[in-house]
Amino acid sequence: MFKQPLPTLQRIGDTAHILDQTVLPFRTETVVLHTLADAAHAIRSMQVRGAPLIGATAAFGVALALRHEGGDDEALARALKVLGATRPTAVNLHWALARMDAALRPLSRAQRLEAAWAEAEAIRADDAATCDAIGRHGLALIRDLAAHRSGPVRLMTHCNAGWLATCGAGTALAPVYAAQAEGIAVEVFVSETRPRNQGLLTAWELRAAGVPHVLIADNAAGLLLMRGEVDLVITGADRIAANGDTANKVGTYLKALAAQAAGAPFYIAAPHSTLDFACPDGAAIPIEDRGAAEVCHVRGLTPAGDIAELALAPADTRAANPAFDVTPAALIRGIITERGIAPAGELTRLYPEHER
Amino acid sequence: MFKQPLPTLQRIGDTAHILDQTVLPFRTETVVLHTLADAAHAIRSMQVRGAPLIGATAAFGVALALRHEGGDDEALARALKVLGATRPTAVNLHWALARMDAALRPLSRAQRLEAAWAEAEAIRADDAATCDAIGRHGLALIRDLAAHRSGPVRLMTHCNAGWLATCGAGTALAPVYAAQAEGIAVEVFVSETRPRNQGLLTAWELRAAGVPHVLIADNAAGLLLMRGEVDLVITGADRIAANGDTANKVGTYLKALAAQAAGAPFYIAAPHSTLDFACPDGAAIPIEDRGAAEVCHVRGLTPAGDIAELALAPADTRAANPAFDVTPAALIRGIITERGIAPAGELTRLYPEHER
Repeated sequence: MFKQPLPTLQRIGDTAHILDQTVLPFRTETVVLHTLADAAHAIRSMQVRGAPLIGATAAFGVALALRHEGGDDEALARALKVLGATRPTAVNLHWALARMDAALRPLSRAQRLEAAWAEAEAIRADDAATCDAIGRHGLALIRDLAAHRSGPVRLMTHCNAGWLATCGAGTALAPVYAAQAEGIAVEVFVSETRPRNQGLLTAWELRAAGVPHVLIADNAAGLLLMRGEVDLVITGADRIAANGDTANKVGTYLKALAAQAAGAPFYIAAPHSTLDFACPDGAAIPIEDRGAAEVCHVRGLTPAGDIAELALAPADTRAANPAFDVTPAALIRGIITERGIAPAGELTRLYPEHER
Repeated sequence: MFKQPLPTLQRIGDTAHILDQTVLPFRTETVVLHTLADAAHAIRSMQVRGAPLIGATAAFGVALALRHEGGDDEALARALKVLGATRPTAVNLHWALARMDAALRPLSRAQRLEAAWAEAEAIRADDAATCDAIGRHGLALIRDLAAHRSGPVRLMTHCNAGWLATCGAGTALAPVYAAQAEGIAVEVFVSETRPRNQGLLTAWELRAAGVPHVLIADNAAGLLLMRGEVDLVITGADRIAANGDTANKVGTYLKALAAQAAGAPFYIAAPHSTLDFACPDGAAIPIEDRGAAEVCHVRGLTPAGDIAELALAPADTRAANPAFDVTPAALIRGIITERGIAPAGELTRLYPEHER
């Protein structure tokens, strides 16, 4: 089982502790969530991010809400509503809240408080186990590529779908860590992922794990693929529709197009909680627009080592800032889940319980 | 004739004055080029940028060299060599140097000094006229789109191929300014163009010209095209091979792929000096790698209004930083030159003198 170098989310007493991902990779700080409002803020402001971690944090948010507001139906409903409204695209959020609701609703008010902590912890533990399983299945792809190459297997990823985005090894990066554990040489092209630069989180966690990696501007992905310098692209996902269309961090679609043009395999790695069989296709996935400020600013380190933010454009600049895009199933070679790898349009092979 | 709000390049006495594009859009500063070394540094450090402007600046660099070093063959050859080695991809550089060489070589040493200034000035003036002609031809495309829409025509561009990149109206943006002059409503999606953020130059010059525009992260282009929110994509070029394959700022290829997938027309706008009939195809175009520092740093304005640079990743981070990519001719609906618009693979229709 993969052990996170630092826990992304853990219960300590009657609080939940998270790594503050808005100051990573520049500084490692823990934020203590005491209340429902703290949890909602953490998700909305992206102190926690990554679809699986958002879901687990929301589950802990329900436990925090019940602790303060009591376990009656009204408090539970309010917690589900507040947390459900934090971010629109990652379906893991709704999956985790529905799981909390199903676990808690049948119970008495008195039972609910401890049960909420227990269920949130179960969601966390399940996510860690799920990541390990994704790693095992994805490892098979890397093994195959390694068998046909002399140098390292050259992966490309987008955004951060590593251990920082989950409660375990990650999704897209779980196969990388599994390959590393098996002694297979891997090198990862990490795209910076403007406007929030989550690629820098990926570079940070790969560096911490000793995995060789190469940072690139998002724009460079096409040329590298065209030149045949990438053997495999794997990204995470925020929501996978029934037909396999996949919403993930904006820019994923461009990599999928370039991978197809280059004949390079493009895979999505995601847990069952990212699958939305109720959503027919990509056009039905809501896409969050996060506003102009993110596009017009950038955060980094000053020469003195302080975190600072710079303006890139005047404050009244109009900007479009969709946080996600949709990669059509036809561009996806396969979806790596904890149950195995399926073609994007044939997820019910792995999840027959969702067969219509 | 388009009048540049500020001259990008002009002779003043025995010097050449340029706008320092490394501090734009944050500050407007002029750099005075006195010597060959000044001109080479200006091109290499991207104080001047944009393929047509690079070419014209190199021409003035030859005049500066001869002024200091005399007009003998050795001085001329040295100037051509030093300037020719500044940047590898934009062919306009070599075109301008070849034109200077052809004009000066037949002359006596005594004649060369004034002739160098005159030829450089002719290159500058020709570029301005060429931009105007590109604007007229591209305007026809925008007019057609406007006739079939009620709202503004929605263009997308990449990098900066406006007046800042040329000695005139620009290449990709020349049709935009022509449309504006004709009263056609246009709106431009401007992608920031990491790692050097030349999109911010585009936003700055469009704002100065009063053209409505929307800034986007490079990653957002795919979704906007997929949603049908873009009517037309036009970018500039740094080198167009005989078969129509086009090198332009890295990330252009990704937009071309997304435009094709969306059925949106993708055009390249470029002067004859960008055409390289001696280069058979995109694979033969040298692609500059500008090193890790550009990817690991970003420049912007502090709240106090000072230009500052922040580190995004540790200094020893490995990065790949190709400054250009290649868009295959098959993805290009047409190339807009000063002689008209031709399919990418059929440039000799407009330039029969290059027919083999």
